[in-house]
Formats: sequence, structure tokens, C-alpha cells
Amino acid sequence: MPIDPAPLKAFLVEQLGEAGVIDDPADLPRYTTDWAGDRRGEPLLVARPRTTDEVASVVAHCRRHGIPMVPQGGHSGLVGGALPDDARPELVISLERLNRIRAIDPLNFTISVDAGCVLQTVKDAAADHDCDFPLSLGAQGSCQIGGNVATNAGGLNVLRHGMMRQLVLGLEVVLPDGRIWNAMHALHKDNRGYDLKQLFIGAEGTLGIVTGAVLRLSPRTHNTRTALVAVPDVAAAMALYGQARRSCCDLLSAFELIPRACLELAFEADPSLPDPLGSPYPIYVLLEVAASGPLDLDALIEHLFETGMAAGQILDGVLAGSDTQAERLWQIRERMVEGQQLRGEHLRTDIALPISTLADFFAAASRRMVERSPDTTVIAYGHIGDGNLHFNLLPPAGLTLADKKALLHELETELFALVDDHHGSISAEHGIGRVKQAPYLAGLAPVERELLEGIKRLFDPEELMSPGRILPRRH
Amino acid sequence: MPIDPAPLKAFLVEQLGEAGVIDDPADLPRYTTDWAGDRRGEPLLVARPRTTDEVASVVAHCRRHGIPMVPQGGHSGLVGGALPDDARPELVISLERLNRIRAIDPLNFTISVDAGCVLQTVKDAAADHDCDFPLSLGAQGSCQIGGNVATNAGGLNVLRHGMMRQLVLGLEVVLPDGRIWNAMHALHKDNRGYDLKQLFIGAEGTLGIVTGAVLRLSPRTHNTRTALVAVPDVAAAMALYGQARRSCCDLLSAFELIPRACLELAFEADPSLPDPLGSPYPIYVLLEVAASGPLDLDALIEHLFETGMAAGQILDGVLAGSDTQAERLWQIRERMVEGQQLRGEHLRTDIALPISTLADFFAAASRRMVERSPDTTVIAYGHIGDGNLHFNLLPPAGLTLADKKALLHELETELFALVDDHHGSISAEHGIGRVKQAPYLAGLAPVERELLEGIKRLFDPEELMSPGRILPRRH
Repeated sequence: MPIDPAPLKAFLVEQLGEAGVIDDPADLPRYTTDWAGDRRGEPLLVARPRTTDEVASVVAHCRRHGIPMVPQGGHSGLVGGALPDDARPELVISLERLNRIRAIDPLNFTISVDAGCVLQTVKDAAADHDCDFPLSLGAQGSCQIGGNVATNAGGLNVLRHGMMRQLVLGLEVVLPDGRIWNAMHALHKDNRGYDLKQLFIGAEGTLGIVTGAVLRLSPRTHNTRTALVAVPDVAAAMALYGQARRSCCDLLSAFELIPRACLELAFEADPSLPDPLGSPYPIYVLLEVAASGPLDLDALIEHLFETGMAAGQILDGVLAGSDTQAERLWQIRERMVEGQQLRGEHLRTDIALPISTLADFFAAASRRMVERSPDTTVIAYGHIGDGNLHFNLLPPAGLTLADKKALLHELETELFALVDDHHGSISAEHGIGRVKQAPYLAGLAPVERELLEGIKRLFDPEELMSPGRILPRRH
Repeated sequence: MPIDPAPLKAFLVEQLGEAGVIDDPADLPRYTTDWAGDRRGEPLLVARPRTTDEVASVVAHCRRHGIPMVPQGGHSGLVGGALPDDARPELVISLERLNRIRAIDPLNFTISVDAGCVLQTVKDAAADHDCDFPLSLGAQGSCQIGGNVATNAGGLNVLRHGMMRQLVLGLEVVLPDGRIWNAMHALHKDNRGYDLKQLFIGAEGTLGIVTGAVLRLSPRTHNTRTALVAVPDVAAAMALYGQARRSCCDLLSAFELIPRACLELAFEADPSLPDPLGSPYPIYVLLEVAASGPLDLDALIEHLFETGMAAGQILDGVLAGSDTQAERLWQIRERMVEGQQLRGEHLRTDIALPISTLADFFAAASRRMVERSPDTTVIAYGHIGDGNLHFNLLPPAGLTLADKKALLHELETELFALVDDHHGSISAEHGIGRVKQAPYLAGLAPVERELLEGIKRLFDPEELMSPGRILPRRH
């Protein structure tokens, strides 16, 4: 029986005020279309609570009336986790008005925030106190902390500071029955009982709604150096990574693989970008070293250049001489993603491999894709310091949209089989949501599935909280 | 009805061979007495499987016959988690023969090991490949990886490398029904579904038996500097910590608070130890900075000395000029724990506070303890870079043992109330086991207890796996 939105709306207006509910079609698009723009879903309504208590009261109401819910942050998750499900209309609970910085404690290196805080806002607040919140993503100007927690976000600085999981010390969650679990501990060590917060981190909103978090900060890195080097092949890039971690003393904060084809995409998006080195090379690595104190980072990088060149791992390179030059190098990384968007329909993946097998995988997968579809273009780049590769595919231009989609689906299946063969993961950082569910379930051991389903049932027996994400609906 | 050990023994001998079972009273003490030596428990028998399959077959047998089990590693956990329960005899499953290094992959910075590997063995294997496994504990010569995982071990290097939880990438667990959950992934990023391994880490063996782990390594730190500084008070030590993290660029690897009373204990244990500075001071900090590459760490520490002295945070100090001198400084830290043991009955705690409130807590707790029992000696030291304090108490010498125990229990209750007031944790790294269960349950929110009990029930419905640890038995 379809749910009547009228009494739900009346309840929400009474609880949250007029501004707390959105149902005007003109205002809906930001809640119905995700960042990639290629998927949509219509909600029953959108609720916009301002406090944890308001979230709890909305969730309790939904539980009483059997209304499915989906929490939503900045909506840049890319796997359909926060997108309303058209098949069975859901109440979108947007956290965007629950966006207060609750406290910052620079001596404890912690910040306590509402889930709706935009990541960049949290980074700025930390910087005001001479600290860094190190999570760094392309979407940091719009993504929210609650979403970062729910998806265990990754990004550019993982090799130095870990995923979001490593940055969360405390958590506040509204459970699917409307009760509040408050564990906003600002403790760097706490070994009391099972670490329940770990279950909510990365659960994509299926076990409850994250409403607040205590995050770990690090000393502000005032001292940063960026370099772009050309390497002969992916194997050399990986060997250079091992060398860079050692000689840069754990101060390495980014290590990004950028094949020439990706550089060309960046030029397509921004023709004013100069070719960064004198002549073109097959593979580049963009690397960054950062320190909070007065260390001679130039000497570290120059030493790395010398040993890398002597070992044949580095063919050429440039060390940014100023912040402006460093920004220009980072623009290559950002523009290439825009260039990829401009090419239209494509396959985006987010895979992880053991760092030691990444080069082999790269070669095998590139070969296999070209065998299967000679005119498909491989666009593979990523955070290879974490073994994380965005191995993406642009289909041949001549095909119809339907044929492109069919081809990409087929190639994805091939690719994921290769990931399996190389003991990798089909989701390094984006999660499962609805988009990656089929291949995820195909690779899931029965014993693990049974335990995960048991956990979901324990937390959300009525299956009302982000139903069908990660695991399929039972009913 | 008591369990008859005879058929169990026959099964174990058949499955594991004669050497796989221990029931000779002469061989039992190492399984019945924990490291602190002040608690004992008699097992039904001791099983010593050599492989994961053998563990699985023993567990399945126990499940079929309703026999309670308790996994045991190096037995240095200090909260009675691995100690057999006298009240309802348990089969001790010792992992000591499941002790193979399975694989080491220096380019991936990972090592894959059996749970029974001794921590020091793993550290040595990593060092052979120019890597560090950074977990560092007093008990590292005897504690085992499985126990480190089960207790989410901490230790000296947490401020730089995190607890065991941050060092585990993959896990293999024998579930309470005897099935094997194999998630030995060697991936630095993996966001597929709920992160089930997090539940087993720190569960103290109550949800299954860890049989293998893939651990994260870091570049070998060839370059280490150790210093001991005298500070006027705990507040100055905490301010110095903030300064040290910033100026040492995240290369700070230890920051230990050592009040003068602890130094005196070290002298009691080893009268040959010289007073490290010219004259005595109220509070010392032992700090270490480590790097894998050729950085000038002396310059970093000297800069810290200068700014610390100018700010009145440092009164005096010594920078070890050689490895031998550095070892001598670390001996103070080790000998003081021995000196404490020599004093006989005492209260050991393992609490955590927000770093910014630690100095206030230290003053308030010291005052309160002396008010309550003027002749009790406070011995408080710890990993204050993590906010972790071992706030221990030596009772007045004149009391009977029973009176000492009663007094210490009373003081512990007072102390834990103060920890609560300061938003701290009663267990920073040792866990709950059976010893800390009563104060843990007293502070546990009903909603959290309900979820934890649900998880225990889901994994171990028959309540046979380490029953009564963390949570009390239901039956």
C-alpha cells in the first residue's frame, strides 16, 4: 500500500517548521540527483532536521508508521547509497541544517561536529587553530561529515592519515528505532567493550543516522612540497613509491598515478594548462611531502630524485618552486576528472590491489580490455600509494547509449574477475550502495553474508533505514 | 552437570596428537596464571592446535558438546580475559603452536601471520625486510598477535602508529560454531560492506578465535633519537606535547610521563641506574623521535629544547648521544614497572583522558586519593601523548592483605568516578575482561548494552566462547 505523504508532511511541519520540509518540485533536484548527475530517484518528501533530537523524532515517527528512510549528506557518494529509491518511496532525511561545529580542542587534537558540517568547513575551522583535518576529497566543498563517516571516505591523504575510519574518535547516531546512541568521546585510546562505532562507519546509513562525530586532528602542515615526475612504467612507479616512503620518512602525503591519457583529458578540460615537462612521457606520478615544522623538504625530494634517476625509476621531473606552481600541478589531477566527465558515458570503478601486484594488474587489465573492445579507451589513475586505482573506461564514440552501457557492463564484469584473481577489492573507497551490489554479492562468502544480514536485522529489524543498500531487501 | 574431560581428551588426542593436549599438572601453570601472577584459573584441559582447520575442528566439537572455551595467547592481558574460569571449567585453546609467518610483502608493506606468532618474532621478521611492525609493548617477547588483535593492544608507539586496530588489514577467525571466516586481505583500502573485522578486534575472544592476521608495516626507522626532559608540572608536560607534535613533524614516536616517584621505583629495582639529570625534578618526560630516512633529528630535538626552555616547559634535559645511552633512558621506563611489582599488592589502572584535561585530572585525582588515604602512594605514569595514564596506587605498608585489597577497591571506585567526571575511559588499552567488568557495566548506557548483547547473541548464541568476559553470562 503506497504511503500517504500528507500526514507525514503535517508531522514534519509541526516538528521541524515549514523550512524543515521540502516537497516543491522546484526545490527537489538537489536531493534527487547525485553528483555524477547520471542517476535520479524521487523521494516521498525531504525532511531537514536541525538537531539530533529532531532527527530522533523523525526516525521514531517513521518507525511507528513503517516509512522507509534514507539519510543524505552532500550527495557525492557515487554508488546510489543516498539516492531515494523510486521503487518504494523513501523519506529523505537531509542533514544539511544540522551543521554546527560543536567544539574544537587543539591541545587534544580533536574537533567535535554535527554530521551536516561540510568537510571544507571543518578543515577551515581546524586551520584556524593551527591544525589540519587531513581528509581531502575532490568533493570537499560539498560533501558532509556524516556522509564521510557513513561511507568511510578516502581521498588523497589516505597513505599518510588513513581513511575516515582512522579519523573518527567519537560518534553520535540515531538508531533505526529513534533512540540516540551517544558516544561522542574525545579519547585517543578507549578499549571498553566492542567498538560499536566501527559498525556505523562505512555502513552507508543502513544501521542508523550519524548525527555527530569527534574527529582527530593533526598539526597544521605549514611546509609542503609538490613534485611531478615522469616514470617509464607502472612497475617503476610502484618501486618509486617504496623508495619514497622510506626516504621521505613517512612525511609523504600524496602519491598519484597519472598516465599520459589522463593528462590529455586535463588539457581537453582546460586547454590553457601547459604540458608540465619538456616532452611527453607515458606515465607520471604527482607526489606531495608535508611537514608541520621547519624541515628541509627540498633536500628530501632532491635526494629522492637522485636515487630514483640513478635506479631508472624517474625519467624527468619538476619540483614546484612556489604554491602557485604546486596548485598548477594539482590542477592536472582535478581537470582530468572534469575532462572524463566531458567525454560522456563511461565506466567508473574504484578498485584496490595489493601495492605489490598493482603493476601486474594494470598491465593485464589494460591488455584484456583492449582485446575485448579495441576502441575502448582505458583511463586508469589513482591513489596508488594505497593500492587504489580508478580503472575507468571510455567506450567507442560511435555506439548508441544503450550499446555503450551494455559494453561497459560486460567489461566491468571482466575487470572485476581480474580484480578477484589479483586478490583485490571492487570497492576501495566508494562503498557498495546500490550500484555495486550485484558484483559485491557475487563475491561475498555465505558465512560473511549471514553475519552481515544478522547485524542488519539486529539494528533495523523493520528494514526501514536505507533499505536495499549494501545488502538486498529481505522483503 | 560437570563436563567429563575424558572423551574430550580422547577427541583432542585423536585430532591434535599427544602434544596437542595438556593435562599434566606440572605443565599447567603457564596456562593457569597470568603475567601479573596474581590471578589463577584451572582449565578443563589445554588444547594446542597447529592449524586453523584444527582450531575449527576443536571449536565445532565444543559447540556440539556444550563445552565452554577460552582462547589463550601470551597471557599478558592483565584483565583476566584469557584466564580459565574456575566457576565453570573451560577448555583453554592455546594458539602457541599456530605460529607460522605466512608471507611478507615489503613492497605492499604487509606481513601475514598466524595468530600464535610472538610479537617480537613478527617485529624481527619485518626488520629482516627493512620494515617495522610498530606495535611495541613491555610484553612483546611473549605476547602473541592473536591476543594483540583480541585486546586491541596499545603500548608505546600509539601516538605515531595507532592501536592494533589501525595495524590490522586482514583477519581470519574461527567462529563460535566452528566455521572459518577468511578475510586475509592484504589491502590498504577496502570499503566492501560492513567492516566485520573491526568487531573481532578488541572483542577479547568473545566472538570467535582469531587464527591469522594481515598486518600493516611501515618503513624501518633507522634514525632514532631519545631524550629525557624535566618539566615543572603535568600541565607543562601536556603543553610540551602539543609543541613537540608540531615541531617534530609527526615523527614523534613516544612521549611518556614519568613522575619522580616512578624514577625512585626504577632505582629500587636496579640500584645501578644513575639519576639521569644532575639534580632531581618533580616530573620527567621520556620522548623519542624516529625517521626512516636521513633527517637531522638532533636539530629537531634541539629546536624543541630551545622553545620548551624559553616557554618554561622544560627545566633541564638530556639527549641520548648513542644507542646505549638511549637504552639506559628506556631502562628507567622498564625498571619502574618492575619496582612497582616488587612493592607487592597495588592497584593498577589504565585510564584515558582527553589530553587537554589530563593535567587537571592528574591534580584532582592525586588530591582526592591523598584525602581519602594519606599514606597511599600515587604512582601515575603513562603514554600521555595518547592521554593514557596508568594511575596506580601503592597502599600503606602496615595493612593486612585483606585491608589493602578493600582500601584499593574503594579508591578505585573514587578514581573511576573522577575519570567519568573528566569524560575519560576506565580502560584505555587493557580491555575489560572479567576484572574491569563491574565498573564497565556501571557506566554502560542501556541502549549500548542492548546492542552489544545482541551482537554477542548473534555470533555466539550458545554462549560458549569466552563466556562472561566483557559482558556477563546470560545463563
